[in-house]
Amino acid sequence: MDTEHRVILNVGGIRHETYTHVLKKIPATRLSRLTPNLANYDPVLNEYFFDRHPGVFSMILNYYRTGKLHYPTNVCGPLFEEELEFWGLDANQVEPCCWMTYTQHRDTQDTLAVIESLDLDGDPPTQEEIAKKFGWEDDYYTGNMSHWQRLKPRVWALFDEPWSSKYARVISFISVAFILASTCSFILKTDPSFQIPDIDVFYSLRVVDEGGFKNYHKTIGTDKPLTSPHPYFFYVDLICNIWFTIELLIRSLFCPSFHKFVRSPLTIIDVVSTGAFFFESVLHAILIQTGSLVTLDFLSNDLCAQLIRSLFCPSFHKFVRSPLTIIDVVSTGAFFFESVLHAILIQTGSLVTLDFLSMICVLRLFKLTQHFSGLKILIQTFKASAQELFLLVFFVILAIVIFAALVYYAERSQLNRENQFTSIPLGLWWSLVTISTVGFGDMVPKTYLGMLVGSLCALMGVLTIALPVPVIVSNFSNLYSHSQARAKLPKKRRRVLQA
Amino acid sequence: MDTEHRVILNVGGIRHETYTHVLKKIPATRLSRLTPNLANYDPVLNEYFFDRHPGVFSMILNYYRTGKLHYPTNVCGPLFEEELEFWGLDANQVEPCCWMTYTQHRDTQDTLAVIESLDLDGDPPTQEEIAKKFGWEDDYYTGNMSHWQRLKPRVWALFDEPWSSKYARVISFISVAFILASTCSFILKTDPSFQIPDIDVFYSLRVVDEGGFKNYHKTIGTDKPLTSPHPYFFYVDLICNIWFTIELLIRSLFCPSFHKFVRSPLTIIDVVSTGAFFFESVLHAILIQTGSLVTLDFLSNDLCAQLIRSLFCPSFHKFVRSPLTIIDVVSTGAFFFESVLHAILIQTGSLVTLDFLSMICVLRLFKLTQHFSGLKILIQTFKASAQELFLLVFFVILAIVIFAALVYYAERSQLNRENQFTSIPLGLWWSLVTISTVGFGDMVPKTYLGMLVGSLCALMGVLTIALPVPVIVSNFSNLYSHSQARAKLPKKRRRVLQA
Amino acid sequence: MDTEHRVILNVGGIRHETYTHVLKKIPATRLSRLTPNLANYDPVLNEYFFDRHPGVFSMILNYYRTGKLHYPTNVCGPLFEEELEFWGLDANQVEPCCWMTYTQHRDTQDTLAVIESLDLDGDPPTQEEIAKKFGWEDDYYTGNMSHWQRLKPRVWALFDEPWSSKYARVISFISVAFILASTCSFILKTDPSFQIPDIDVFYSLRVVDEGGFKNYHKTIGTDKPLTSPHPYFFYVDLICNIWFTIELLIRSLFCPSFHKFVRSPLTIIDVVSTGAFFFESVLHAILIQTGSLVTLDFLSNDLCAQLIRSLFCPSFHKFVRSPLTIIDVVSTGAFFFESVLHAILIQTGSLVTLDFLSMICVLRLFKLTQHFSGLKILIQTFKASAQELFLLVFFVILAIVIFAALVYYAERSQLNRENQFTSIPLGLWWSLVTISTVGFGDMVPKTYLGMLVGSLCALMGVLTIALPVPVIVSNFSNLYSHSQARAKLPKKRRRVLQA
Amino acid sequence: MDTEHRVILNVGGIRHETYTHVLKKIPATRLSRLTPNLANYDPVLNEYFFDRHPGVFSMILNYYRTGKLHYPTNVCGPLFEEELEFWGLDANQVEPCCWMTYTQHRDTQDTLAVIESLDLDGDPPTQEEIAKKFGWEDDYYTGNMSHWQRLKPRVWALFDEPWSSKYARVISFISVAFILASTCSFILKTDPSFQIPDIDVFYSLRVVDEGGFKNYHKTIGTDKPLTSPHPYFFYVDLICNIWFTIELLIRSLFCPSFHKFVRSPLTIIDVVSTGAFFFESVLHAILIQTGSLVTLDFLSNDLCAQLIRSLFCPSFHKFVRSPLTIIDVVSTGAFFFESVLHAILIQTGSLVTLDFLSMICVLRLFKLTQHFSGLKILIQTFKASAQELFLLVFFVILAIVIFAALVYYAERSQLNRENQFTSIPLGLWWSLVTISTVGFGDMVPKTYLGMLVGSLCALMGVLTIALPVPVIVSNFSNLYSHSQARAKLPKKRRRVLQA
Ligand SMILES: [K+]
Ligand SMILES: [K+]
Repeated sequence: MDTEHRVILNVGGIRHETYTHVLKKIPATRLSRLTPNLANYDPVLNEYFFDRHPGVFSMILNYYRTGKLHYPTNVCGPLFEEELEFWGLDANQVEPCCWMTYTQHRDTQDTLAVIESLDLDGDPPTQEEIAKKFGWEDDYYTGNMSHWQRLKPRVWALFDEPWSSKYARVISFISVAFILASTCSFILKTDPSFQIPDIDVFYSLRVVDEGGFKNYHKTIGTDKPLTSPHPYFFYVDLICNIWFTIELLIRSLFCPSFHKFVRSPLTIIDVVSTGAFFFESVLHAILIQTGSLVTLDFLSNDLCAQLIRSLFCPSFHKFVRSPLTIIDVVSTGAFFFESVLHAILIQTGSLVTLDFLSMICVLRLFKLTQHFSGLKILIQTFKASAQELFLLVFFVILAIVIFAALVYYAERSQLNRENQFTSIPLGLWWSLVTISTVGFGDMVPKTYLGMLVGSLCALMGVLTIALPVPVIVSNFSNLYSHSQARAKLPKKRRRVLQA
Repeated sequence: MDTEHRVILNVGGIRHETYTHVLKKIPATRLSRLTPNLANYDPVLNEYFFDRHPGVFSMILNYYRTGKLHYPTNVCGPLFEEELEFWGLDANQVEPCCWMTYTQHRDTQDTLAVIESLDLDGDPPTQEEIAKKFGWEDDYYTGNMSHWQRLKPRVWALFDEPWSSKYARVISFISVAFILASTCSFILKTDPSFQIPDIDVFYSLRVVDEGGFKNYHKTIGTDKPLTSPHPYFFYVDLICNIWFTIELLIRSLFCPSFHKFVRSPLTIIDVVSTGAFFFESVLHAILIQTGSLVTLDFLSNDLCAQLIRSLFCPSFHKFVRSPLTIIDVVSTGAFFFESVLHAILIQTGSLVTLDFLSMICVLRLFKLTQHFSGLKILIQTFKASAQELFLLVFFVILAIVIFAALVYYAERSQLNRENQFTSIPLGLWWSLVTISTVGFGDMVPKTYLGMLVGSLCALMGVLTIALPVPVIVSNFSNLYSHSQARAKLPKKRRRVLQA
Repeated sequence: MDTEHRVILNVGGIRHETYTHVLKKIPATRLSRLTPNLANYDPVLNEYFFDRHPGVFSMILNYYRTGKLHYPTNVCGPLFEEELEFWGLDANQVEPCCWMTYTQHRDTQDTLAVIESLDLDGDPPTQEEIAKKFGWEDDYYTGNMSHWQRLKPRVWALFDEPWSSKYARVISFISVAFILASTCSFILKTDPSFQIPDIDVFYSLRVVDEGGFKNYHKTIGTDKPLTSPHPYFFYVDLICNIWFTIELLIRSLFCPSFHKFVRSPLTIIDVVSTGAFFFESVLHAILIQTGSLVTLDFLSNDLCAQLIRSLFCPSFHKFVRSPLTIIDVVSTGAFFFESVLHAILIQTGSLVTLDFLSMICVLRLFKLTQHFSGLKILIQTFKASAQELFLLVFFVILAIVIFAALVYYAERSQLNRENQFTSIPLGLWWSLVTISTVGFGDMVPKTYLGMLVGSLCALMGVLTIALPVPVIVSNFSNLYSHSQARAKLPKKRRRVLQA
Repeated sequence: MDTEHRVILNVGGIRHETYTHVLKKIPATRLSRLTPNLANYDPVLNEYFFDRHPGVFSMILNYYRTGKLHYPTNVCGPLFEEELEFWGLDANQVEPCCWMTYTQHRDTQDTLAVIESLDLDGDPPTQEEIAKKFGWEDDYYTGNMSHWQRLKPRVWALFDEPWSSKYARVISFISVAFILASTCSFILKTDPSFQIPDIDVFYSLRVVDEGGFKNYHKTIGTDKPLTSPHPYFFYVDLICNIWFTIELLIRSLFCPSFHKFVRSPLTIIDVVSTGAFFFESVLHAILIQTGSLVTLDFLSNDLCAQLIRSLFCPSFHKFVRSPLTIIDVVSTGAFFFESVLHAILIQTGSLVTLDFLSMICVLRLFKLTQHFSGLKILIQTFKASAQELFLLVFFVILAIVIFAALVYYAERSQLNRENQFTSIPLGLWWSLVTISTVGFGDMVPKTYLGMLVGSLCALMGVLTIALPVPVIVSNFSNLYSHSQARAKLPKKRRRVLQA
């Protein structure tokens, strides 16, 4: 009879039986240390009572029996892990076939932590939480909160938590409207129908020998080779940027932690794009200011004209003192100054900088992140999928390099006058366009061998991109569906991490 | 010994044991209020009997033990929630790791409710349900239904519930045939091979000085600069629209609620598109009617001709009274009237309106919704995915604005004579075409920097669109698969919501 | 005390308890008819014993308790339905929330039935099964199988079941090789580099008046406006078609059921494509035969020449009897015969028929279905997804009609000289190309409004196609993964339907 | 009473009951052989005790009861199979409805085995494992490991296991840098802006008859029809290839098994691409060397010039001995030698070989596999999906052949001067481009019939490719997610296969 070696474990009312030596298999756990001296030992029924989940316990006991830890699939991961913890077992010992189950709920926890950190609309925080956030725990508990300490969180919520109050929503709405207005202005001012010509004034000097007397002619003309956006756009930009500046000032004044605020990428974008606008405006104003001297040029000549005049004038002294000459000298100087400035600007690439500065404005769109939770989730997805994005780019680069080389040599292998693949770098562009199935058609293989390479490229492309994308998509839909699930719960239950 | 603090709960025959203090953890629930005075207390066995599902109860009891409410995954959500309700527990208290399980069956219920509302083919409704639908409960229960009250639902079913009878299917088939005929006519009449030239009659006047006597020549010519669809299309359209009008009248007469019927988008589309046809026809008829005066023009001149003639005529009196002059005056008047009318029409953009009106006809395709359940599910999917569609459009707009700006400046950064990116709005079109991987190839970057932007755009595009689409797809496949599952059940069991 | 109303049900050793009135809730079932007179009633323990699955029974009993039938998710559907059947319950009564579970395993059964019918490689059939298949059950059981009855199944297996033996694999391989050869010949013979010019001989007659004597000149020339494939292709085709004819004859002779064989689409394709080849060859031979008369034409003239000659000849009698005239008449007659034949052929569109006939050869590729199980699964997928394919085409047609109309009017709304959208049918092509994200770029909107329509079309396109595709994909992967799972089992266990 | 035929099975504390005859249903299993003589029979309770998982046992017993083996879905496959093994049952007997469950965990095991073989970063191997890997078990156990046997594994780890130490990471980094440098050089040297012209020297001879005295003119000119990459690229390539040679030598010296190392595809790629570089360089050097004789050509003429001169020279003897003639002869000979060499090279296609050799360098990118685990997984995915890839290619070929034929005849069916589909092979390219939704637009159907074929092709294309891709994608995501799950475990637990 083997009954004497058996042990009865009453777990939550259900009696499990096993041999005593089975429980010794995993040492230093709750079950390996069972002795009749324990309070939960019932000598009448000869059993140990544990107030735990009976169903899950059969998986625990099975671990002792078989030495293999499998996760049950009828209860969720955290529940099983809590049981494992109670029984003193290590969740890491899970069998490889259950690795996915094991990591899945860890991923869920990560997802939930991310959502918690996204600061989506929820229950308004308590006074205590606010004090903690602003670092005034001491003042809060001693009860002597200053007037400023009461005002600061309210203003901050007004500008940073659109869901907190009706007024916050209005301010958020205004902010979004200004971002959109500034972006529309940015887009539309490049459209030819919204541009006005820049009139360029030019003048020339011709020396004419009229009957022995050397005379000179000044010609003033206009030209319109350049256009500039309609000035109204400047006013729209100005108003928008004034709002952004005000917003930025208020935010920097009322933020919980100035250190953290300054380092946030959104603040940096804000400062740079607003700064870029004002810098550009001032620079432009200086250019116009110096450019306004151009009007003086109507009365002037360029330096060589001066020299010619001074050469042919009867009296140099008189010539120098004549008011016309003075004006001439001044305006010519101004012209040279402007030319030199312009030259320096071009030389140092400042005009390119101007282009670059105006392009920065488009980053302002990322400020919408503060106002739309969908965008927050998108950015969080890209952060969480950094590894998969790297993989995607890596696969794509590998594939395009290989296909670019193949198509380059394939198109050269045959006499082919219309060959468009004149270098591998151009082939890179073609193979990327083919792999992504965009297929602009600006470059197309003309030989049968090139077509074969193109076919492989198109098919491989589908795979190269199709493979890492689902991982990224599942990261997004994980975040999105959890945030949707959270939004359906009553506000009080939305906190992930409880005390 | 801790046995005296234990309590035995016999749930459906399975005995669960726990400590009494555990049950007190969640107050104001059925288990926290257990006393031996209850009818289900058995003093012999010292247990409480509950006639409930024993397996699910272990999850319930685990909630008491650990303070955490997890959903089991071996029974479906509604079953567990019914148990929660019985034990007086709040399903909202679910742990974050089970949020998805919690919301999933709520989504299923929403899906089922939507399918129920779609009015797909099912069991024919009972007399009582019909009376309820038409708002005649009182008459139904008192038993005095008028003849009209008996007829109305039948005619309505004939026109609105294609699955209700053989006749209804025939009418549905005719209706679909007319919609298709009207759409085919709409498409084909724009094809050049189905168009006939509009002959345009013109006339000119030339004054000739023949030997001192001023004479004038009238020239009549024809021109065919315009074409119009073959007149047969008009008859096809007419017949279709007469059917649509009849159908509309019958529906408006026999509908259960006129108020609801009038406000349905399908009715509005129907009224507008049929109205547009008749409005256009009448307007066209008027134009032709006035245009018929053009034939009179063969005998007339234009006003200046009249003036010239009257100037050169020997006797003004005689001239005015001559029949030729009268005809001339009349016809010229008609011509002016027509010209003015035409001018007004063009001026007020009525011709554009005509174009717009004929375009409305294409909306008639949405009337197919009444006849195809697949289309109903598609529209319902778009309704249910409004948020995700907004997200998709939002992501796409964000991405195209950023890439349009980048490609615009990238293509300007280098001297590039073939630059096609002359403005950011054009860049928006290019980046949308690239992001959606359509890639028409009408605009292509020419510089290496532009190509880099294009490459990023193509790759990002795949992601931007791939991220929100699966959510929409799952909404569709949810609706579709449930409707397919429902179609496989016997008709009687298809009702989702039971009494 | 409510214990007296309780009933104990010992199901497979686990004791379930409930109230007697609960079991009466669903009448006419095994549990509602329980009486102590039953053999499985144990008066000592006061319980009814049932030798069934205890876990599943708690779901059954829950149905009695709550009146709602839910499927458990820890056992597979068929197991639960067997239990339902044992307890006399109707699986149709399932709650809407479990509809998907309910239909899912029905779909699995359909999938398995399809795979069984696909006749994939499995255990060789027993003599009994073969006899059944060929309809010789009587002969088999009486034991008097003729020699023919023993041979027929073997030859059939040789040609129709490539997995049955080594020889069958060889024949299958030869068959595939001939199909590929015939397809390659079909493709390559259209390539210009494999074509030789057709020399076209022409002749003309000119009457010349030379010094009062009317003479006539015959000119013979050659022209090569047409090319025809290299004659070697004909021999390849001939050999292939001879094999196909032999194969077809053997198959028709040894098939289990001639009726079924003749009606199978593969046989029809085979007969039509082989027939088409021979018909075309014969027709071509006739044409060449008549065309060979063209050589005679070198000696002939056309009819008018004859007439002219007869007119100018000194003696009509002599002229008629001269051998040259006879040759002339014969050859001219031949020429006319050929011309008329050619005219008739063209007139009746026979040449188009020839084109059509040669196109039929491509259908021969479907004969590969017999040799590749992947192709069988693909075709089965399309059959099983007929409804979803219809939905896809329906959605696409709806979308392209709407966008074609929109883009047609959008491009007309603005003065736009390069408008490529001259009719809605052309717009249909454009919108399909855009919706499928192919984007050839042969038609591109030029106005901003047209671009907006194009953008919507590209985005909607992604959705329109993305929605029904996953359903079809899941049909395929269901079939594919089950057939893969089956292939991993030992051959004996692969039969789905057991006796 | 049927109680006497019953048997009680106490499995892990839970008592299951059934009839004795039920257990006899499946012979030769543990349960069919139960007798009261067994040690686990308890005569008091009249039960058999088994220390196994009680929940899973109800599925086992159900197999006896119903004769159908279903997998439970609340425990993972391997656990259930271990139970099956214990009870002496055959897992192959699984019902068709559970085939997927049955194969799923087999696939998981395959996936895990693949990951184990990928040699991803893990715990450093023990001395014993290293000895086993290098085949020195005997030496290891006897304890007399030579100095070389201690060094070899360390150097190998340094070059082949980047995760093993800091130095290994540095070497891996250098190796990757050289691969990238060599690839960049390969790409950039084809770019026109990095190419310098090859100056080609030519000379001609003209005989001039000047006043009776026949004279000859030599002309020397330069031409630059060819360009060659900048010489710096050669130095970059040289340095890279020297590193690769060193690395290859070290690896071949320190590899655990030279046989296995030589046969690995990566070694072959390495040897071929490095060899190709040196072969090409040497060949090029020879060509230049012979090309340096070209400088001598400045002083020479071609053969005909010599002949002409010798013909017109007054004294042949004198002429032959003149130093100029000697130089002429030598240089002309050199020129002929060079020409012949060049001709031979071209003739034997060596220049094409050179192109092919330089293309091999791109294969060097696959050496990155050693350094990036993502690439390892990609290659493993393609290996594991060989069957599905074949299916994809097979479906695509089938579809493109059919659509190529259809579009070819469709475009011929109508008079169509702009027909681009001049042969079926070109149609193949078009249909592949359409099916993959790349849509270059270089070939576009012009007739309505051709457009219809194009539309079907685009739609079918989506399906043809969409069907097999998810299977490949799931193979990848299976491998990827398991490798990610593994990376989250502590290093010690990462081993899949335990002793
Ligand atoms: K394209
Ligand atoms: K495309």
